[in-house]
Amino acid sequence: MSADSEIMQVAAQGSFTVGGSIVLSEGAFDPRSFICRDGNTRHVDHAYVQYQIPPTPRRFPLVLLHGGGQHARTWESTPDGREGYQTLMLRRGWPVYIVDQPGRGRAGNGSVGITINPGGFDRSLWEIFRLGVWPDYFPGVQFDQSAETIDQYWRQTAPDTAALSEDVVTAAFVALFNKIGPAILVSHSHGGQVGFRTILESENIVANVSYEPAQFLFPDNEPPPDVTSLDPFVSEYTKPILVSRDQFQALTRLPIQLIYGDYIPTEPSPYGGLEFWRVVMTRARQFADVVNRHGGNVTILNLPDLGITGNTHFPFSDLNNVQIADLLSDYLNEKELDARR
Amino acid sequence: MSADSEIMQVAAQGSFTVGGSIVLSEGAFDPRSFICRDGNTRHVDHAYVQYQIPPTPRRFPLVLLHGGGQHARTWESTPDGREGYQTLMLRRGWPVYIVDQPGRGRAGNGSVGITINPGGFDRSLWEIFRLGVWPDYFPGVQFDQSAETIDQYWRQTAPDTAALSEDVVTAAFVALFNKIGPAILVSHSHGGQVGFRTILESENIVANVSYEPAQFLFPDNEPPPDVTSLDPFVSEYTKPILVSRDQFQALTRLPIQLIYGDYIPTEPSPYGGLEFWRVVMTRARQFADVVNRHGGNVTILNLPDLGITGNTHFPFSDLNNVQIADLLSDYLNEKELDARR
Repeated sequence: MSADSEIMQVAAQGSFTVGGSIVLSEGAFDPRSFICRDGNTRHVDHAYVQYQIPPTPRRFPLVLLHGGGQHARTWESTPDGREGYQTLMLRRGWPVYIVDQPGRGRAGNGSVGITINPGGFDRSLWEIFRLGVWPDYFPGVQFDQSAETIDQYWRQTAPDTAALSEDVVTAAFVALFNKIGPAILVSHSHGGQVGFRTILESENIVANVSYEPAQFLFPDNEPPPDVTSLDPFVSEYTKPILVSRDQFQALTRLPIQLIYGDYIPTEPSPYGGLEFWRVVMTRARQFADVVNRHGGNVTILNLPDLGITGNTHFPFSDLNNVQIADLLSDYLNEKELDARR
Repeated sequence: MSADSEIMQVAAQGSFTVGGSIVLSEGAFDPRSFICRDGNTRHVDHAYVQYQIPPTPRRFPLVLLHGGGQHARTWESTPDGREGYQTLMLRRGWPVYIVDQPGRGRAGNGSVGITINPGGFDRSLWEIFRLGVWPDYFPGVQFDQSAETIDQYWRQTAPDTAALSEDVVTAAFVALFNKIGPAILVSHSHGGQVGFRTILESENIVANVSYEPAQFLFPDNEPPPDVTSLDPFVSEYTKPILVSRDQFQALTRLPIQLIYGDYIPTEPSPYGGLEFWRVVMTRARQFADVVNRHGGNVTILNLPDLGITGNTHFPFSDLNNVQIADLLSDYLNEKELDARR
């Protein structure tokens, strides 16, 4: 079950929820009734967090934040059953916190109702996640192509269980960083923009390594130039998020690394799921430029430029994820953020 | 964060999904479309499982199955932040598997849609879970009464994310025991009846310790006598589940222990949430009688009869949960199920 057969040591582990609010229904509560909906409460909009602390831990914990349609499984076992970042980074001495965002997975109770229906989705994600164009894999893709692996991959998604705004989701993560203190945020995909929003409101994030973020914050007085795409969904899902110039400044106070994998087209693509990433890459460069122009420290790591090929939208769980984890260790070492307590 | 400050050792840990089915939507899939719902699939109705294996493990893993409205958090940290069964039993040398059932938590994708609304609920559960009658605690209750603890307690629930039958839920757990081989099932509340159903279909369950199960299986040719309650909800939620005489026989082939806490009335109660447990206790005795009459080995452990008082519906996370865990260790030792591999 483990690529690394050495026994690991854990000083403490557990779980908790953090943040959130309370909904109170009108009326008078009757304790005689088996279930009385009136005058009753529901606790909602918290994040759910699991943690493991190694002996002699490094000073700054890693907070691993999943992407859209995903939950903490993103960081646990890889789809083919090897160790993911949760365990790999624990073995390297990091306290590791993995989360489910409000309205997802084990943080399911939200303040705004929703209807869930099991519509088809997987084959579009196959392309958006850059395994290939369904049913084909890209040549050289860093993904085990067994039936069991792809089955595990699709089953690691989960539906939204509440219709929550990004502000509500962000508030729970601000509460998390208030609780645990200074820490390093490692985010994925939609977790990228949630993380950027969290940085605006928490000084406890000391660095952000973001795998394949797709939407970016810009100062409202400096909106980026338009990026043309013939696909209206691509234009919509890559739209700049405008915040005040004052808020934006928070993004300049910590090192931010954006990491992208392989198979991102440089010319317009007729495949919506690939065209998406072409536009994202342009937006990522616009984001790095504007943050750095205001004194920030954003770097973009394009893995193929380093000669690392075949990575999908999930570099940290791809077949070469130990090599990708090494890049994370290197970055945090270079930024002098990996000292022991 | 940990009651036990000793460092624990883990040989392997990770997560996977197991069981489930695939929904295919009609029509032709178009890979050019950013998201194409036609001719597409959704992987659904699996269970989600996290595991930890200690060095030199005991032979039979523990599978910890949560109750209604709950998920694996049931077995992780207690509401007041101490170690729950996941960690306590790992420290005692058991491989531990914790699960989210299909249509709950991280096993969110289900085959049947549902609408989720944040209606009031907590104060009724306060009573059904036997903390007391809201807003009062029972005197001597084994529950930390700080505001932070009760907040954590309410936030460990999560909604159903699909309208699944118990047969569908059971099928995923049958698949789990097929995958991991002979193991001990530790269940809670609604997980009790899911566990009993799983025993009918899997010979890999070698023992079942069930905390506060509320509904029971009976042979359809021997339905139990009616139990009278003036509360129609109580009568409904404690209704015998009838199965064929042949199926029922499976329950006689393994030791089963049913464990109940404190504050269960022996006379009819005007409080629906307490009256419920009065009827449940009668049903539990009926169940033990019929299984044992057919050659089984069901015992009922009524904690107050042992002089252990103050336990709620969650004895394994109550303030005295180490003592409750000792009873589990004792039972598995007595049944000669705790040898090392």
